[in-house]
Amino acid sequence: MKQVIQALSTKLSNDQISTNDTVKELHSKDETYHQTSLPDIVVFPKSTEDVSYIMEVAQKFQTPVTPFGVGTSLEGHVIPYQNGITIDFSLMNQILEIKESDLLVKVQPGVTREQLNKELKKYGLFFTVDPGANATLGGMAATNASGTTTVKYGVMRDLVRDMEVVLADGNVIHTGNLAAKSSSGYHLNGLFIGSEGTLGCFTELTLQVYGIPEHIVAARATFPTLTNAIEAVTSILHAGIPIARVEFVDEASVKQINKFSESDYPVKPTLFLEFHGNASGLQEDLAFSKEIMQDHGCDYFNSETDNAARNHLWDARHNLAYAYIHDYVGKKMMLTDVAVPISELANSVTYAGEELEKLNIPGGILGHVGDGNFHSLIMIDMENEEEVKKAKQFNEKVVRYALERGGTCTGEHGVGVGKKPYQREEHGAALDVMTNIKKALDPNNILNPDKIVDIDNGGNL
Amino acid sequence: MKQVIQALSTKLSNDQISTNDTVKELHSKDETYHQTSLPDIVVFPKSTEDVSYIMEVAQKFQTPVTPFGVGTSLEGHVIPYQNGITIDFSLMNQILEIKESDLLVKVQPGVTREQLNKELKKYGLFFTVDPGANATLGGMAATNASGTTTVKYGVMRDLVRDMEVVLADGNVIHTGNLAAKSSSGYHLNGLFIGSEGTLGCFTELTLQVYGIPEHIVAARATFPTLTNAIEAVTSILHAGIPIARVEFVDEASVKQINKFSESDYPVKPTLFLEFHGNASGLQEDLAFSKEIMQDHGCDYFNSETDNAARNHLWDARHNLAYAYIHDYVGKKMMLTDVAVPISELANSVTYAGEELEKLNIPGGILGHVGDGNFHSLIMIDMENEEEVKKAKQFNEKVVRYALERGGTCTGEHGVGVGKKPYQREEHGAALDVMTNIKKALDPNNILNPDKIVDIDNGGNL
Repeated sequence: MKQVIQALSTKLSNDQISTNDTVKELHSKDETYHQTSLPDIVVFPKSTEDVSYIMEVAQKFQTPVTPFGVGTSLEGHVIPYQNGITIDFSLMNQILEIKESDLLVKVQPGVTREQLNKELKKYGLFFTVDPGANATLGGMAATNASGTTTVKYGVMRDLVRDMEVVLADGNVIHTGNLAAKSSSGYHLNGLFIGSEGTLGCFTELTLQVYGIPEHIVAARATFPTLTNAIEAVTSILHAGIPIARVEFVDEASVKQINKFSESDYPVKPTLFLEFHGNASGLQEDLAFSKEIMQDHGCDYFNSETDNAARNHLWDARHNLAYAYIHDYVGKKMMLTDVAVPISELANSVTYAGEELEKLNIPGGILGHVGDGNFHSLIMIDMENEEEVKKAKQFNEKVVRYALERGGTCTGEHGVGVGKKPYQREEHGAALDVMTNIKKALDPNNILNPDKIVDIDNGGNL
Repeated sequence: MKQVIQALSTKLSNDQISTNDTVKELHSKDETYHQTSLPDIVVFPKSTEDVSYIMEVAQKFQTPVTPFGVGTSLEGHVIPYQNGITIDFSLMNQILEIKESDLLVKVQPGVTREQLNKELKKYGLFFTVDPGANATLGGMAATNASGTTTVKYGVMRDLVRDMEVVLADGNVIHTGNLAAKSSSGYHLNGLFIGSEGTLGCFTELTLQVYGIPEHIVAARATFPTLTNAIEAVTSILHAGIPIARVEFVDEASVKQINKFSESDYPVKPTLFLEFHGNASGLQEDLAFSKEIMQDHGCDYFNSETDNAARNHLWDARHNLAYAYIHDYVGKKMMLTDVAVPISELANSVTYAGEELEKLNIPGGILGHVGDGNFHSLIMIDMENEEEVKKAKQFNEKVVRYALERGGTCTGEHGVGVGKKPYQREEHGAALDVMTNIKKALDPNNILNPDKIVDIDNGGNL
């Protein structure tokens, strides 16, 4: 590693290269139960040129490289299992350009979603994708993140127009253009988004943003059972109501919300909803949705247009994972993340709920049910081997149930190492195509090795 | 070719293999000015197994393979410049499954969009993507086609959930799954869509469909100038009105429409619009849009909810290219297809209009302006060398103007051979990444060679 540091030092300043133990430790983990592993070096590039140079050095010395945003990944994406160089993008955190007239914004990868939205608000704009964590836009693109508004506005792949990417050999490309659609060449934009740092490092992103809707109504609805709530959602979707958000939270999770966010929501299977539109259309959508939910046994319904009340509701939802973490000190979080076709959603959530109950490990079910995507969140004691084993078996059961019904093992968190065991089952022979693409673009397997696909070059995971 | 035919004959019946001159001639061209070229053999597979076998034979004998839907491509995609085998998918035209509860439909690649919509109508559903031609779904996926409803519902890449694809070596993969979103593995779905037959042959597609909106209003608005009309569109987009369709047609094209479709629309720069939504929201959107258009000089506005009148309007728009072809017998059609960021749209269309006027070749401007995408359509006399040269220069000017402003050379028609000369200019070093992907997935370059990327193995174009 001495040689690598020496080579890096010829272009990077000393404060951009760290081998400090605390710094390394901070880059050895994500927010979940995955085993930690230290990088040898953490570098802090300030420009595309820096990243390009780092990749040249890494290529020369065949050093593994792991890109790092703020470490909020949930499947071990940022953990450097082969050590080497971790590239921390925190110094590349500038909002480079806000093109109001095109509803586009250009950012560096280290910008976080909250940082971006704070700035966009001044222009009456917002960026829609909102994972629970205050993740970086680079990390969100790397995992094809989504969130509560995806049911209306789409996932990262729908909203990134163009990226600047540094390839394994240090070359710099653009993956797209600034037009709203294109049929020119292979869809590199879509390929790099969700590639989890295994095909290149993102150094600039141009994102599509929206005007903040003039009229917004949020609502909460509770149901006697989890199944009732989910069936109400599928009916709303079938009715073609253009709902902007529809989130499910089970009883255990409502309890956590109340505790952490000082709310007093009724402890019942609950839907959090939101509607965007013009004043009269929105009222009609709201009334129709309410009617549908009542048909499915909704026993409490409350809507609010007040800004502060709405924000409190969504903050509470976004902080849900932290509410669990906060309440179970010393335990580690594991999340399932399956997405299934709508028609399978009620049964899938019911199945996961039943299995979770059998587990006898603290946790709950929540999710972006408008997309057929839900999470079982469990807090496990990593010292308790039996519990870890049971938790992993539960994860596997939920995944298998989804795959057997045409679903996916991960709706939004990505593969990392946690969902890698299911890649062959989900993708079949297509996994070989993915492996061939990885080999073509990163022949020496130095870009975030061990993630998504396994390359037979002596990976030591 | 004798050996190839012999090999094919061991699995395919005689009526599935043709070397008939008329059949070959039908597969030597598309709907435009591109030079024709005959295949040696045309095959008509009936199943995935047939296609897989054809690819095995092609691989064994290193025979180029060109997939063919109904030949409505606009950039020479289906023309076999290296001869070899053309795979005609017309016998694979079954609608395999309509999953109403999931708003999904599974089709074979030879199903056309009109065939599909006729069937879906029985279920109150529709497939949104509507290029002018009655193209096959396979062809539409191959070019990442879009159309008049894209501004609301998206392009093919947004609406294909999964595909079965036969690879260059005959292996069969699935590119996606049935869930509404996924972060699992590389985005093969997006990569294969728009790959124009250069990475694999599509043998099954699962498409997302929508319920036919209960309330639809169509409208026509005319403006004193082309620039007024386009500026009105950008204002509507900035206002965040969820418009379902907004099409621009210039004076020359309105004339063609009136002649071909027996309408009497005022001969002025015109917008054709459509709104989908609930009854009250839609009226508010319509009124707001009308107000915006009047601010931009709209001098005639007419809306209709009547089904027949609406259908006539959109049929007229869809038949516009044929209206030109019909009126200029013996001439060949050339289309520009740029898309630009919204802020550049008015200037781009104005520029194209001015250049078109200088040309003195019959043609007009039309387009899906809600996506920043427009076409200059010109009818050229291929015997007139000077005219052909001028037309090509015009195409180049319009493309360059768009590329210099962050746009794309093709918004929806694809690259084929016609937009290949602009690939380096548009994609820069990213074109090398595309070439590497092509080499990794089709190492012998037998899949639709000469399209999108050039591979140095003696292509003879």
